[in-house]
Amino acid sequence: MTNPIPSDKALVPFVSVDHMMKLVHHIGIEPMLIGLADYIEADFKRWELFDKTPRVASHSDVGVIELMPTSDGEAYGFKYVNGHPKNTKEGLQTVTAFGLLADVDTGYPVLLTEMTILTALRTAATSAMVAKHLAPKGADTMAMIGNGAQSEFQSLAMKALCGLKTVQLWDSDPKATEKAARNLQGLGLNVVPCASAEDSMEGAQIITTCTADKQCATILTDNMVGEGVHINAIGGDCPGKTELAPAILHRSDIFVEYPEQTRIEGEIQQLDDDHPVTEFWQVLTGKAKGRTDDRQITLFDSVGFAIEDFSALRYVRDHIHDAGCFIELDLLADPDDPRDLFGMVQRAGA
Amino acid sequence: MTNPIPSDKALVPFVSVDHMMKLVHHIGIEPMLIGLADYIEADFKRWELFDKTPRVASHSDVGVIELMPTSDGEAYGFKYVNGHPKNTKEGLQTVTAFGLLADVDTGYPVLLTEMTILTALRTAATSAMVAKHLAPKGADTMAMIGNGAQSEFQSLAMKALCGLKTVQLWDSDPKATEKAARNLQGLGLNVVPCASAEDSMEGAQIITTCTADKQCATILTDNMVGEGVHINAIGGDCPGKTELAPAILHRSDIFVEYPEQTRIEGEIQQLDDDHPVTEFWQVLTGKAKGRTDDRQITLFDSVGFAIEDFSALRYVRDHIHDAGCFIELDLLADPDDPRDLFGMVQRAGA
Repeated sequence: MTNPIPSDKALVPFVSVDHMMKLVHHIGIEPMLIGLADYIEADFKRWELFDKTPRVASHSDVGVIELMPTSDGEAYGFKYVNGHPKNTKEGLQTVTAFGLLADVDTGYPVLLTEMTILTALRTAATSAMVAKHLAPKGADTMAMIGNGAQSEFQSLAMKALCGLKTVQLWDSDPKATEKAARNLQGLGLNVVPCASAEDSMEGAQIITTCTADKQCATILTDNMVGEGVHINAIGGDCPGKTELAPAILHRSDIFVEYPEQTRIEGEIQQLDDDHPVTEFWQVLTGKAKGRTDDRQITLFDSVGFAIEDFSALRYVRDHIHDAGCFIELDLLADPDDPRDLFGMVQRAGA
Repeated sequence: MTNPIPSDKALVPFVSVDHMMKLVHHIGIEPMLIGLADYIEADFKRWELFDKTPRVASHSDVGVIELMPTSDGEAYGFKYVNGHPKNTKEGLQTVTAFGLLADVDTGYPVLLTEMTILTALRTAATSAMVAKHLAPKGADTMAMIGNGAQSEFQSLAMKALCGLKTVQLWDSDPKATEKAARNLQGLGLNVVPCASAEDSMEGAQIITTCTADKQCATILTDNMVGEGVHINAIGGDCPGKTELAPAILHRSDIFVEYPEQTRIEGEIQQLDDDHPVTEFWQVLTGKAKGRTDDRQITLFDSVGFAIEDFSALRYVRDHIHDAGCFIELDLLADPDDPRDLFGMVQRAGA
């Protein structure tokens, strides 16, 4: 049996989990978070030209599998992502993801990559990019409430992009806090494990909530939140899952990615459908105002959006070649004569 | 830098183009077409339990990129497929495809595979499975109109499943007919290149149309089609693309995959929205009648449906292990502690 060498056009660069970790260390995690934030900010600034298809979800009793496509007219990207809360008990990830970037002009894929790690990075980069614009001036202390898989990425992104100096950790499970504190040692942050959510918020100008509670929980109550802070609410990200008391929402100016999605999945599912919110891209383009005074509470109600994944895919496409962090996959059939697919198959068996 | 060995759960079997060709030759193309048809027929028989999401299309001036998901509640599958008619001029495939199968219970992918070749096989297997039920008894001669990439697969599937003995080839481009005739030599069919569409239909009980015309063409006119034949119309597969004169449709009993999709993409886009058609799965389950008399014209207006891809993905999943036609891709991050994604990334750089 012959082994015909596929043409260049048939080969798609593939970034494995191992390659993604190598890429992170090749670039450095903080420079990579800054680079991702640059790509995300650039795409937020051209928000209007994107094809914003709603995510396509397939629900079952135990979880959901989603496809999140988008396109800027030149490139097309999509992410496959599952959400299975019960997986953790079985030693599996709640969320795994991979993604693909393709050339709109030919329809040919140009990148296939793991996105479990990449999603963690882009989520943190998005949070920090938004906080850079909305947090009060001189903010250098963050309460990190919920010390799961996202917490260290959030902390480092806030350090790299916003000049964070101190992170105050709290989780209902002390082992999670121990893990986060251990991971953050020696990375240039003052890391303070706290005994209560209230303690973690002492003196913090940025409050990040990222817990795994599956229901409408009240991680933050109204009296815990003082004026002038920026709240980065990450954990309310699906229908029936929220973290903030409604009274906090009523005291805040609320910024969102894509209102149609956030009203279903975010903290604002607790509010009326016509409650005013600002699309964050409009702050970047000058169409809307961000923070306007020191006493204002700004709230980024983040649920994650396909354009952030698209930016991350672009970033990876542009950086893997220098680092050599990929292999070529023989994914696309590419017969010499496009009409002679059968002949190609037949000759492979000769 | 360490190279941690990923756990089994992080690895996803990947079937490249080369592996798919090896699988075809390992099993044999006719046994594989028969096997695929069995899987497709089995899934048509349980049609009602599938999650039938419409395909998600991203259109541009030059083509379309589509995601076609479906699920039977145990497995979830989707196909990525592009359609770029102008690609051929650039030496690229008009259509390329790949697909994924995942476990609904965990959301973890279990198979990633090329689907350009696999789609050609499943399309032919579907046509032949339907013809086995609808073509007149003793049908052994087919007119194959349009001799492009699908024509040889169609011919062999009709041989393997329906006992076809003679295929009469015609294409507006004689070089396409030459190519198909050459590829089909020595495979057990009597192959007859023809000088006109009319010639190719002489004595044929099965008429397959699969041309690349982009507009509403009339490959078959009404007076060309005699009574009692089975028409297998493959080429009308997107809005504004049809092959049959409307008068033929009015003389035929029409069978379709999924009416909601076929009324937009198939030959029946030329008919009123309420023109009666039969969902083919109902013929298999006894809910509807197939061919009822010798003079009837049966028409399978095929546009391709996600369930056929799902069946093909199941078939590949079940057969690659014997053949060893795959590699394992490190696609999913799988830290020992699901909450310690950061630690996994960090340790990879140690």
